[in-house]
Amino acid sequence: MPVYKKDWNFTTTGKGTYEITHALAVGLRESHYSTGLVSVFVCHTSCSLVLMENADPSARVDLERFMDDLVPEDSPYFKHTLEGADDMPSHIKMALTRTSENIPFENGCLQLGTWQGIFLWEHRTASHRRKLVFSYLGEK
Amino acid sequence: MPVYKKDWNFTTTGKGTYEITHALAVGLRESHYSTGLVSVFVCHTSCSLVLMENADPSARVDLERFMDDLVPEDSPYFKHTLEGADDMPSHIKMALTRTSENIPFENGCLQLGTWQGIFLWEHRTASHRRKLVFSYLGEK
Amino acid sequence: MPVYKKDWNFTTTGKGTYEITHALAVGLRESHYSTGLVSVFVCHTSCSLVLMENADPSARVDLERFMDDLVPEDSPYFKHTLEGADDMPSHIKMALTRTSENIPFENGCLQLGTWQGIFLWEHRTASHRRKLVFSYLGEK
Repeated sequence: MPVYKKDWNFTTTGKGTYEITHALAVGLRESHYSTGLVSVFVCHTSCSLVLMENADPSARVDLERFMDDLVPEDSPYFKHTLEGADDMPSHIKMALTRTSENIPFENGCLQLGTWQGIFLWEHRTASHRRKLVFSYLGEK
Repeated sequence: MPVYKKDWNFTTTGKGTYEITHALAVGLRESHYSTGLVSVFVCHTSCSLVLMENADPSARVDLERFMDDLVPEDSPYFKHTLEGADDMPSHIKMALTRTSENIPFENGCLQLGTWQGIFLWEHRTASHRRKLVFSYLGEK
Repeated sequence: MPVYKKDWNFTTTGKGTYEITHALAVGLRESHYSTGLVSVFVCHTSCSLVLMENADPSARVDLERFMDDLVPEDSPYFKHTLEGADDMPSHIKMALTRTSENIPFENGCLQLGTWQGIFLWEHRTASHRRKLVFSYLGEK
């Protein structure tokens, strides 16, 4: 079975969600596949993936604020704090969201809903170089 | 690589979990595949997927109640409230659960555990038309 | 499309995270595939999967402690308590993490990040026999 693989590197500039839908669509075009599935994988444990509304940015602001409240940086029992106060909360936020995500495609287009986009969610405060792997499985 | 694709539409009638295991098994029979993997994808950001016990319904009642408590509708900082008080909580509950899920199959049967079912989790109060995409990858 | 399937059984000894990266790499070697994707599936609803840092064990201790705080055993509204106080919290922790996870591979190696491992997360207090299914999709 042929698989089209693409490594995708991206530098984040602090906490927040970064849309990667376009990068995924570019790889799909390169694969020349018509029908199938693309699997997105994040090679890190302090950032994650989320499919989210991409029309009104306030939805993402609220989501990020909720997660900050749910996983506060100052939990007194955290032991894993070598890299700072945002270290352990980043891992927890990753665990509560997703490391891999699969999106189907047909006629060479991602089958996303009208207001659906896929985002890399950076949980660290500092800028980080992030690597993702896109694996396209399909037929021409 | 041949992929068997099936769009599946379903109308929900308010918040709750709706079992879709049977619909997934029907598609598998149509595919004529024996061994492989089916990927389920939800084309929305205010409902989600969850694999859950399908024997005792009280388990799902407790899960839904927990999630309602975790993500209250009246958070004072929510800005994304255009569609009502259940708008933003729906997106958050989706982000905390799953948009895509993969289930293996063998000898033409889904390899679910004895009490395991897959559910579409509607997070909106009003009835909604929902679209899912089933992608079967396998061999005959 | 050929798929290499492997059932993997494991006996847990109480709540905690158990690394399964090695078992997944062994199956990859057996598949003789070079490039592709492996899908991991847990056939249960009271344990789950998580990709997590595998260098400093304190990160997992903090994560497990956080989840215990988030989902307490003594919620007064839990009805699904037949199997004990850890019954319902186990299902909730599973729903908040993952039942299936996909990891890409290339040149016969899992494409995990430097400090990334995959773990089976047991949420029950008692020892349990757990079944996982590894599905390798790839080319030689």
